[in-house]
Parts: sequence; structure tokens; C-alpha cells
Amino acid sequence: MSDYTPKPEHRFTFGLWTVGNPGRDPFGEPTRAVVDPNDSVRKLAELGAYGVNFHDDDLVPFGSDAATRENIVSQFKKTLDESGMKVPMATTNLFTQPIFKDGAFTSSDPKVRSYAVQKTMRAMDLGAEFGAETYVFWGGREGSEVDGAKNPLEPLKWFREALNFLNAYQMEQGYGFKIALEPKPNEPRGDIYLGTTGHALGFIATLDHPENVGVNPEFAHDTMAGLNFVHNIAQAIDAGKLFHIDLNGQKPGRFDQDLRFGAEDLKGNFYLVKLLEDNNYAGPKHFDAHALRTSDADDVWNFARGCMRTYLVLAEKARQFNADSEIQAIVSELNGGGASAFAGGYSKDSAEAIKNQSFDVGALTSRSLPYEKLDQLVIDLLLGVR
Amino acid sequence: MSDYTPKPEHRFTFGLWTVGNPGRDPFGEPTRAVVDPNDSVRKLAELGAYGVNFHDDDLVPFGSDAATRENIVSQFKKTLDESGMKVPMATTNLFTQPIFKDGAFTSSDPKVRSYAVQKTMRAMDLGAEFGAETYVFWGGREGSEVDGAKNPLEPLKWFREALNFLNAYQMEQGYGFKIALEPKPNEPRGDIYLGTTGHALGFIATLDHPENVGVNPEFAHDTMAGLNFVHNIAQAIDAGKLFHIDLNGQKPGRFDQDLRFGAEDLKGNFYLVKLLEDNNYAGPKHFDAHALRTSDADDVWNFARGCMRTYLVLAEKARQFNADSEIQAIVSELNGGGASAFAGGYSKDSAEAIKNQSFDVGALTSRSLPYEKLDQLVIDLLLGVR
Amino acid sequence: MSDYTPKPEHRFTFGLWTVGNPGRDPFGEPTRAVVDPNDSVRKLAELGAYGVNFHDDDLVPFGSDAATRENIVSQFKKTLDESGMKVPMATTNLFTQPIFKDGAFTSSDPKVRSYAVQKTMRAMDLGAEFGAETYVFWGGREGSEVDGAKNPLEPLKWFREALNFLNAYQMEQGYGFKIALEPKPNEPRGDIYLGTTGHALGFIATLDHPENVGVNPEFAHDTMAGLNFVHNIAQAIDAGKLFHIDLNGQKPGRFDQDLRFGAEDLKGNFYLVKLLEDNNYAGPKHFDAHALRTSDADDVWNFARGCMRTYLVLAEKARQFNADSEIQAIVSELNGGGASAFAGGYSKDSAEAIKNQSFDVGALTSRSLPYEKLDQLVIDLLLGVR
Amino acid sequence: MSDYTPKPEHRFTFGLWTVGNPGRDPFGEPTRAVVDPNDSVRKLAELGAYGVNFHDDDLVPFGSDAATRENIVSQFKKTLDESGMKVPMATTNLFTQPIFKDGAFTSSDPKVRSYAVQKTMRAMDLGAEFGAETYVFWGGREGSEVDGAKNPLEPLKWFREALNFLNAYQMEQGYGFKIALEPKPNEPRGDIYLGTTGHALGFIATLDHPENVGVNPEFAHDTMAGLNFVHNIAQAIDAGKLFHIDLNGQKPGRFDQDLRFGAEDLKGNFYLVKLLEDNNYAGPKHFDAHALRTSDADDVWNFARGCMRTYLVLAEKARQFNADSEIQAIVSELNGGGASAFAGGYSKDSAEAIKNQSFDVGALTSRSLPYEKLDQLVIDLLLGVR
Repeated sequence: MSDYTPKPEHRFTFGLWTVGNPGRDPFGEPTRAVVDPNDSVRKLAELGAYGVNFHDDDLVPFGSDAATRENIVSQFKKTLDESGMKVPMATTNLFTQPIFKDGAFTSSDPKVRSYAVQKTMRAMDLGAEFGAETYVFWGGREGSEVDGAKNPLEPLKWFREALNFLNAYQMEQGYGFKIALEPKPNEPRGDIYLGTTGHALGFIATLDHPENVGVNPEFAHDTMAGLNFVHNIAQAIDAGKLFHIDLNGQKPGRFDQDLRFGAEDLKGNFYLVKLLEDNNYAGPKHFDAHALRTSDADDVWNFARGCMRTYLVLAEKARQFNADSEIQAIVSELNGGGASAFAGGYSKDSAEAIKNQSFDVGALTSRSLPYEKLDQLVIDLLLGVR
Repeated sequence: MSDYTPKPEHRFTFGLWTVGNPGRDPFGEPTRAVVDPNDSVRKLAELGAYGVNFHDDDLVPFGSDAATRENIVSQFKKTLDESGMKVPMATTNLFTQPIFKDGAFTSSDPKVRSYAVQKTMRAMDLGAEFGAETYVFWGGREGSEVDGAKNPLEPLKWFREALNFLNAYQMEQGYGFKIALEPKPNEPRGDIYLGTTGHALGFIATLDHPENVGVNPEFAHDTMAGLNFVHNIAQAIDAGKLFHIDLNGQKPGRFDQDLRFGAEDLKGNFYLVKLLEDNNYAGPKHFDAHALRTSDADDVWNFARGCMRTYLVLAEKARQFNADSEIQAIVSELNGGGASAFAGGYSKDSAEAIKNQSFDVGALTSRSLPYEKLDQLVIDLLLGVR
Repeated sequence: MSDYTPKPEHRFTFGLWTVGNPGRDPFGEPTRAVVDPNDSVRKLAELGAYGVNFHDDDLVPFGSDAATRENIVSQFKKTLDESGMKVPMATTNLFTQPIFKDGAFTSSDPKVRSYAVQKTMRAMDLGAEFGAETYVFWGGREGSEVDGAKNPLEPLKWFREALNFLNAYQMEQGYGFKIALEPKPNEPRGDIYLGTTGHALGFIATLDHPENVGVNPEFAHDTMAGLNFVHNIAQAIDAGKLFHIDLNGQKPGRFDQDLRFGAEDLKGNFYLVKLLEDNNYAGPKHFDAHALRTSDADDVWNFARGCMRTYLVLAEKARQFNADSEIQAIVSELNGGGASAFAGGYSKDSAEAIKNQSFDVGALTSRSLPYEKLDQLVIDLLLGVR
Repeated sequence: MSDYTPKPEHRFTFGLWTVGNPGRDPFGEPTRAVVDPNDSVRKLAELGAYGVNFHDDDLVPFGSDAATRENIVSQFKKTLDESGMKVPMATTNLFTQPIFKDGAFTSSDPKVRSYAVQKTMRAMDLGAEFGAETYVFWGGREGSEVDGAKNPLEPLKWFREALNFLNAYQMEQGYGFKIALEPKPNEPRGDIYLGTTGHALGFIATLDHPENVGVNPEFAHDTMAGLNFVHNIAQAIDAGKLFHIDLNGQKPGRFDQDLRFGAEDLKGNFYLVKLLEDNNYAGPKHFDAHALRTSDADDVWNFARGCMRTYLVLAEKARQFNADSEIQAIVSELNGGGASAFAGGYSKDSAEAIKNQSFDVGALTSRSLPYEKLDQLVIDLLLGVR
């Protein structure tokens, strides 16, 4: 693997909207031309990707008639077949059109909510047509700037109604989707509901069918809130809810940057890749990122290559970490204690025993925890000087 | 109520550690003398508070022998009786002593984990002795700076083992506690596990007995991560999990300030108070804050008075909002739509109907949403010029 | 003044781009129609504003020919005359067009730098034609995402060359502009050079003619970095460099929100208004903000009214603060000490005297500083319950 | 150099307070014993450091009498002589003692201000006795939480009076100090005056003798505000004001972490080291950091070794970057343009020429800027796979 060449078996995916991003931003016009989705698929296949994902409108422009849709779909299927690329995930664009300016599933207008549900049903049909296994919900407009307008409990109720309904729909249709909620704290709304991976996990517990609903955490989104993404992914895995993942780069406490994977926080991303690899995460590794606005069309492919390459390098480093005897000796030293006296569960006896146990507080306090040593070894490993 | 005088029926509480905070910080020594908990109780009673809360070590200093404990407890009970003050909440100090330097329930040393469980069992006994109804878990040391040391799934498992065990213990003892998890994103640890209200809600769903476990969100903690606290509280209420609340002041994106309630973000706190009042939140309103390090003993009471006064003023403003016909007309206009076509739940027929429904996208898009008007009326209301 | 009606003497201004903002954002299309600048002027005059500001391209669309420019200018002058509105400030759009994708004055391409200088010269001519007194430089594209590409010292040198050249140009033309640098930490670039008011002040000291170069601090921009805007404005006033000010609303640590003035941080904005009023700031009070994307055309005017109204209400509160005897007694108590022993400047004797002075450390330490009391009185004042 | 062994010629320094940090934090008691400064010096010499820095109270405990001071000083000089270690920088502790609770030079009490000046004069004498060349001012308590108490212009005036006085003092004494201001945005105060490197640079321009006053930027401090530290250092170098530097690790938007150098943001720190090395920064590289609270005494030395090692590895990577022909070809491509038409300064003719120059906007716009390619090569270089 030391050649770090991406292959389909690595399950790397890109959204059509990522390599097709034209470089528009809040203060500037596009710097790149619109890209034909078929060209994106062919190029990504050549680079070693496994598949592409799309919002309904990425493939079939908003407002297209049935014939146009049909033409686009059949051409796109052909391109996928020829290139061997998959569509493992699909999703709905519920944020670009002004009709969603105050929310889709959480609009205070019940007609807008119905319209959003209709659009999602049709987008689910489209995704199913391409064999998508995961269906993502990113509620980019589900939020607020003025909390006095709605009773803040209503949007949660409305969001739940829509999710329950749509999950029932896709189950009845036999699509077999895993539903994955993608949280984000803010932007474009002042504050978005269900702002972090934790909030999404909490919300899932309130749904009619939590069993096939999980999360699609995104590095940039949780990092915007300054949260530790490795911890978030660990909690999702712990809950059996890591259904999909969005990998990219982001600095904390600012606008959504969607940088190339690995462009920021190499150590954090090393631990992230290690966590995914150690736990045999088998879902797609989706790069929900885009090239810098300064990039031209060629540099977009440098961007795409870089995302995959850095993942593979970090995965190799994770294997080195696991195989490094000095590192493993420290890890063992730090974790050598085994199960606690209460790990077996509660009983009156175990409670009694623990309550009366006597502890050498001084000895427990003075235990050596050479975390600086370990962390420096990781830095050495990352920098290739070990 | 226009005199804004706090009364026990308002259920305002303070931690012994809040009004007793001596003004030490990471760069400076204490500026205030240690306070006798009995004096705090008497003074708070005089100011109109409902009760006090404590960590085990706030009342009975760490390492006290049985006789000392007994004396302290009996004196404190007497003071409570005389002053009519309650102890509605108790908690455990699992962060001050160096033995917890790498976590209590999530220490990699099983003996430390057992010790933390033992300390909590005893603190639960103490809390029960004072009639506490809610038992709070703030995992201040449950976190990491070096994620390579532990498998990040282990701390979650260990945390869950401890919570399950301790919940079973208190149930068997008949204490009837509502357990409330208090999240915080960072400080003192680099990253704390279960960093936000959302994460705590997500974690609860994985426990043996989620039914009596909820959250104790703190304004400062979720605000440190830049999250909208009103949305967090709404999600906790929606999930039936708002068991307790910590009110204070904080600016986003910085160290834990624990400022006087209302000192920051008047509009956000107005919506917070409105949410609590509109939903008849009946739990304690706990001010987990402390006076500025510049304050002397007298100014600590100005601080305490201010917390309660601002709450009462904002509660009055919430009533005005609800009674203001111009404001209510806008709110109605913004929310006049009623239930959606799918609110009744999924059926094949309703799916069919929605899928084929035709929408006037232009009309739905151009609907007027005078949020600026409403928000300015709220500012006028807050500033008292309405 | 208790009617809070804006009047031209209050010197309130709006950018054409603010009330004309169409509600486009990174994830969505415009929600409002394009506005004719002449209509904006007429409406703002009706609302009591003093003037409007513009980027060259706000008034004369990018790429217009000479005849078009002439028509637009003469019509706009007529509208200004009829409405009595002024153009106190002008600026250049060096960020929308893709040619500026990697910077204008700090592009590594010297031709782009020359083009930016040319565009600014012409925009200065345009501003002068309308009698603008202040010329603002906001370097929205002057920044980087990849610091390896340029030697980080070069952009500063290039920026300085351009500023020196353009200042010399306008001096020679006799435009008499006060030049005001507007800092911002990030967005649209990953990191913008001269990121805060402080950085701009530091940079000015390196220019050929610092005497007519100052700052145009914006509430949202410094607040994005979590800085105290009142302190920034105080430092600008202290340095004699507060030439212009951009007022709006923003939450720390997130994307640039440009909310209605007063929509966030009422206390901070109260101190801001008080600082401006107490120091007789005589420049324009420019609202560099825009209505929420949910607003329709009518609500844009609610937004504009709200900006001015909140300023006037806070100014009245500042007067109340200064006239409140209880508040002033505390302020006096907190500031009663007069000049220090070294305020007169250094001399050998004063040094000797201070070095040997004996201090009662205990007494100085225990001095009462009732900041909680004062802050609560301010909250009472703001909430109108005092 | 490929052995990465620190040597005195690298000019690495540590504060006595860094390796001597006992591991106390806002929520916990110390985890490590107090360290004898002489032991620190001997150990740091053994590890290859160049020198140590101190606050007055680090070496001579607050309140020591003259004889104690004398003993400590003479013993410490002996240790320095024997170990060959230097004291290149000294500073004053104006934050630990409660007398400074509301500021030292910016206290509203003129006696406290005089006391702070006296303490600094004596600390300057102590620093001079040890041959310190740089004198640092970190105004940890110079800030506020309640901006209504002081006129915000006063603290700046007071701060300036003190700096002018103390600079005059040390000049007259012939100490020849370079004065370096160390900014920080917040903590322990809610907001600290002169919050970033930019603010300090701006303030210097207002002093009596700006020529020997510069900055001591700290990675953690500017990073807390989310600012790009490389840009800050470039601005300080550009202004001729980089007199000292504090290197450590920090995540944006949270409490002051003071992590091991290189523990966070490897790419940013690579560019930082490259900037220092490319510009032949000759001052001390001071690690103002401390070991994690979990570390024991041994791990503190792992921490210290790691700081220096990572710097040396990154310096070697910077040399590789400069010697890498593929990388340099891209850098040249990106910077090949030379000087602009206005770089020579303003003249009527050059103005005329630029104003009438004709530009091929399309060609300038479409210029290729392969920043993604370059950034990925840097990542490869950092990860040692190039």
C-alpha cells in the first residue's frame, strides 16, 4: 500500500457538488465553469474513487420536466456503468431555492413542509433508481435567527413528523435506505436545529423507527463548534449509528470552509482515520469538500487526489502506530488496568464491596501518565521522523 | 410581581460553591475569604432563594473523618430548618483532587474508577440525607488531551458502566433521584466527553435505565461552543429530559466565565426565560455562577441579587410579549398555517396525495416573513421603550 | 428626543449594498429583487438618514461604458439633491470579480495589482464627484488559505505600496479624503491580512503618510474574532484614528452575519454608543448590515428603521447613565484616585521616590470594587426597570 | 542536523514557570511538586537549551526580604555559570497577587499603579543583574469585565504612562532592554486591553520611544482569537518589531492551553518556523508552555524535549521546501510577476500611465493558481512521504 494509490475498494466517494463546485462565495462570483456530472464521474473513476453522491438538483436541475429528467438519468446510468462507479448515497436539496428561505421541514408554513416532503419522496425515488444505500438529511435551512417567531418546540415536532413520514415511505417502497442525519451548528442560518452529532443522536431516540436512522457527521461542521470530531465519531460508533461520514478540512470558530481532507489538523485527522480503520468502518468515506476558489479546473483534480492520498497516508501511519512496540508499550502501560470492580453490573454485594473498599489514594494519584511522551511519539510518527 | 422581589416559590437556587467562590483563577490567588456554608444559607434565605445545592466536598471537606462529617451535617440541617431553605440537588466533586487528573469514571485505571463510584455512592447518601431530588453528574475530568492513549470507545463504555451502576444503587436505596447529566465542551480538559446538551441526550439513549436520566444544561457550557442555548433547552424539553438547569452568563468561544445571570446576551436569555415560563418548567432555577474576582464579600450578594432580579424582569417581559397584541398579531401571521398534510402519520394514501399535490412555488416563496419587524419589537420590549 | 425619530443631524448612513442586498448566501439564491439606488436614497431620506455610501460597482455596474456611467451619475446626483442626502463615504469593490480571486493589492500578479489600483483611482474620482470625505479600504480578498505560496512579507509590502500610491494620488487631486482601513479576520479568505482594528492601527504606522489614514472598524468583524469592540474603538480614538465606523450585529466565532444594529449584545452596544457619544464622535454612523434573507422588501425598511431607533434609544440610556446619581456615585468611588505619582513623566527624582515609596499592600488589596453592583444597575437601566 | 539534537546555538529558552508549572488549574489542585529553579536550569542545560527566563517572583518569592533575595540570586548565578545557561529575557509578575485584581498599570487606583511601577523597576534591576536583553510586559490583569466602570480611554493612557516611565527608567539605568509587549485577548480578564499582536503594534506607535519597543507574540494567545499566527509574525517582522516570540500549542476559541510546541496545527507551525528561519530571526525561541496536568516530573522533561525536537524537525522541513525543485517551480509560477507598475512610488506620470493602462481582464482572471497542488505537496512533505 505504500504507493498510496486510491482504489475502489477504499470506498472513497465525492459529491457531484464537490468537484463541481464553481467557486462562488458570499462576496464573489463563480471562478470556474459548470461541470457536466458525467465528466466528473469519468474523471473520479480514473482517479480511483468508488462512487459519487448527489442531491436531486445536482443531477436533474430544479424544475426540469419529465423528459429532461429521463434523458439525464439514462445518460448518467450509462456513464456509471461504463466507469464502474457507484452511487452509495443520495440526498435532497432543500436549501438553494428561495421557497425554503425559512426552513423546509421546519417552515411555519405547512404547505412548504409538504412541498419539502414531496421533493424528498421524489429524490428518494431517484436515489433508489441508482441503488443508493444511504439517504442523507442535511437541514441547512432548518434553523432560525429570530427565536421569538416560532415556539422553539414546534420545529422539532415538525422535523420529526417529516422524518417519520419519509422513513415510512421509503420502507414501504422497499428502498432499504439507512437514513443519516447530518448536523451543522450554523450557516446559512444563524443557528441550525440539531447543531452537532450529539444533538442528532439525541433526536434519533425520539423517532418512530430509530433503528434505521443514524448520523452522517462532517468534520467541518462539528469543528466549527470547536468540538473534538474523534470523540463525536466514537460516540456515534458506540451508539451503533455511524452510517456515513463527511471528511474535509476546517478551522474552528469560523465560516464553513470545506477544505481538502487533511488540509487542517493532521493529528486530529490521524486519530480519526485510526478510529475508522481500527473499528473497520465499512461505509463510504465521503469527501464533502471543494477546491479553493483560486483553483482552476485542473487544480480541482489535485484537490480530489489530495483528499484520497492523505487518507491513505494516515491509514498507513495508523498501522505503524499499532505495530510500533515502543508506542504500544506506553499505551499498555497507560491502559493496563483491566475491568473495574463494577463492570459486571450492579448487585447489592458489589455495591457493598465497593462502598467499603479501601483505596491508597496517594498511590493512585501518583501513577505515571506519560502522555507528553506518547503525544511526541505520535508527532514523530506523523512527521515521518520515526 | 412588578417589584421583582425573589421569593421561595420562584425556586431560585445557588450552589454553595457559587456564593462561596473565593476568586482564585489560573493566574491568581484567591481574593475572598472562605465562607461558612451556614452563613451562605442564611444570607440566601434572606435574599429570597429557595435552596442551595452542593458537591460532597463543599459541605464536608475532602478527607474529613466520620465525627467531623456528623457535626457538619447536623449543624447544616439545623441551619436549613431555621432558614426554611431546601437542598433540591446534590452532586459529587470528581475533579479537584489530583487522583482524578485523568478522569474519574473514565480513568484508564479501574481502581480510580471504583474510587469515583465509591465517592459518588457516599455523596448520594449525603444528598439523600438532605432530601435532594436531583443528582447531577458533571464530568469535568472525563476527557482527554491526547487521543492516542485510550481507545476512544472505552471511556464511553466506562462512563456508562458507572452511570448504570450508580443509578441502580440509588434506585435500590430508594433515593428516587432524577439523574441529570451536565455537559461541557472543554476546560479543564482539552476536550470533555459528551460535550454538549445534545451529546448527553444521545448518550442517555444507551443507558440501562434512560427513564430517570436527563440533562442539566448550563448556559455557559453550551455557549462556549457557540451553540444556541434556547434550542438546546427546547430539544431537552421535547425529549422530556430537562431535569435541572444552570443559569449564568458567558461569551462564546472562550474560557468558562460563569458570569452573573443576564450579564451577557439579554435577548437570548429573554427567549430562554420565556421558554421556561411558557412550558411551566417546575424544576429549580440554579445559578451556577460566581461573582467577579474583583468583588468583595458584599458585592457577592449584589451578584446573587442580580441573578434573581434579572430572571424576574425577563419573566415579566415574557408575559408582556404574550400579551402584546401587535406582537401576537405578527406571531400569528408567521405561524398561521396549522398542521401539514402529513402530520397525521404515514399511510399509502397520504403518501400518494402528497406526492401528487401541486404547489404554487411562487406564492409560497413570496410569503412575507417580517422577522426584522418582530425582532425590533422584542428589542423595544427589552429596552423598555414599548 | 424621547420619540427616537432619526434625523439627518444624527448622521446615520447606509451603504447602497446594505438596503439593496438581495438575500443571496453561500447555500441559496437571492430572495429579493434588485433595488434601484435612487429608490434606496429616496426611502432612506424619508426614514431620516443622513446619507448613503457606495462601492463603485454598486452605483455603476462593473464594465459599464462611459455614457452609461454618465447617465447613472447625473440621475443619482439629482436624486441626492432632491432628497437632501449626502455621500459621506465611498469605497472600491475589489472582491466580487474573479480577477481578484487571489487578492487585489496583494495578488502575486503585478498586473492584477495595477488593475486594482486603476479601479480604485477611478472609484476615488467617482467618490470625489459626490463629495465623499472618507474613502474606505476593505481588503476582502487580501488574504490566503495556503501560506506556502507567497512569502508572507510580500503582501504587506504590496498593500503598503498601493496605499501609499493611492493616497498620493488623491492628495494630488485635492480630494482631501480621510483614508479608513476596514479590517476583518476571515471570510471570504481563510485568513485576511490585517485582521483586526489593532492590526490596521499597527500597519498605518508603516505608511508614508500615516496622518490622514485611520480605521473603519466594524462591529461584526472584530466580534467574529471574539474581541471587545468597545476596547477596539477606544484604542482607535486614543490613537486619533477613528475616521469612520460600521455598526451592525454579530455573534462571535462564526460566519459574517451583518445583522441589524442592536440585534446582538445590547450591553456591549450600549457601551459602544456611550463611548461614541461621550467622545463626541462626529463622523457618520454607518450601518453596514442587511436584512435577514427571510425578509421581503418591506421588511428591509423595518430593518433600516430598527438600526437607527436602537442607536437612539441606547444614546438616551447613555445620557441616563451619566445623569444617574447612584450610578455616578459608584463610578466615582471606583475612579476616585486621581493621577499616579509617575503621571507627570520620568525624572530621576520621581523614579527614586517611587522606588522607595512604601505601600500598604493589604489596604490596596482589600479596596472594594462593586463591579457586580454597577453592572446590575446597567442591566436595570437597559431593561428599563430603573 | 538530521539528529535533531537541541544545542545552545539554537537559542531555545524556557520560562522557569513553564517546566516548574505544578499542574494547578481552575478546577483542580496541583499534581506536581514545586521545583527548585536551580534544578530546572541544570536539567534544561543537559537537554540542550540556551537559557531560562523568569518573572521576578519565579526566582525570588513575593515578599522575600533582602537577605533571602541575595542568597537566591547568588546561588542562581552560580548555577547559570556552571551550566552555561543564559537569562535572555526577564519580566514582572503583575497578576498573581490580589492587589492586582483589577489591573496593575491600568488599575483605577493610582497607588496600585505606582506599586506596579515600583515592582517592575525592581524586577528590571533583577533582570539586568542577570544580563537579560529583552524585557517583556504581559498585562494579564490589564482588562475588564464591566466596561461601565472606567472610561475606556483611561486604561490606555495609564498603560502608556507606565510604559513610558519604565522605558525611561531602564534607559537611564543603562540596561539597554528591548521592551516587548505580549498581547492576549482574554483570560484571566474577560477582555484584556491590547488583545492581539496587531493591537500591540498599534499601541507602540503612540509611545514616547517606540524605537526600542516591540512585541512578544505568543502562538496560543493569537490563536485563541482564531487569528493566523504566521500573518501576525510577518506583520511584526515587516514593522521591525519582532523582539521575542513565545512558542506553544493551542486550539482556537477556548481557554489558554499552553500545550507543547507542535502539539497542534503542524502545518501552521511549519510555516511559522519557515518564516522565522527564512528571515534569520535571531532572538530566543521561547517555549511558553507547560506539561499536561496528567504528567509527572519525568514527563515534564519529555514535554521540554518535544518542544525543541519538533522545532528542529520543522526547520529541516523548511529547508527541504526551499530545496525541492517541484515545489519551487510552483512557487515561482505563482510569484513570477515581479514588481508592479506603481512600486517605484507615486508620480503624476505613473498615475497617468496606470489610469489609462488597458488590461486583459479575461486573461488575468483565468491565470492558473494551483494552490491545492502546492498545499498537498506541503502535506506530503510534512508527513514524510515526499
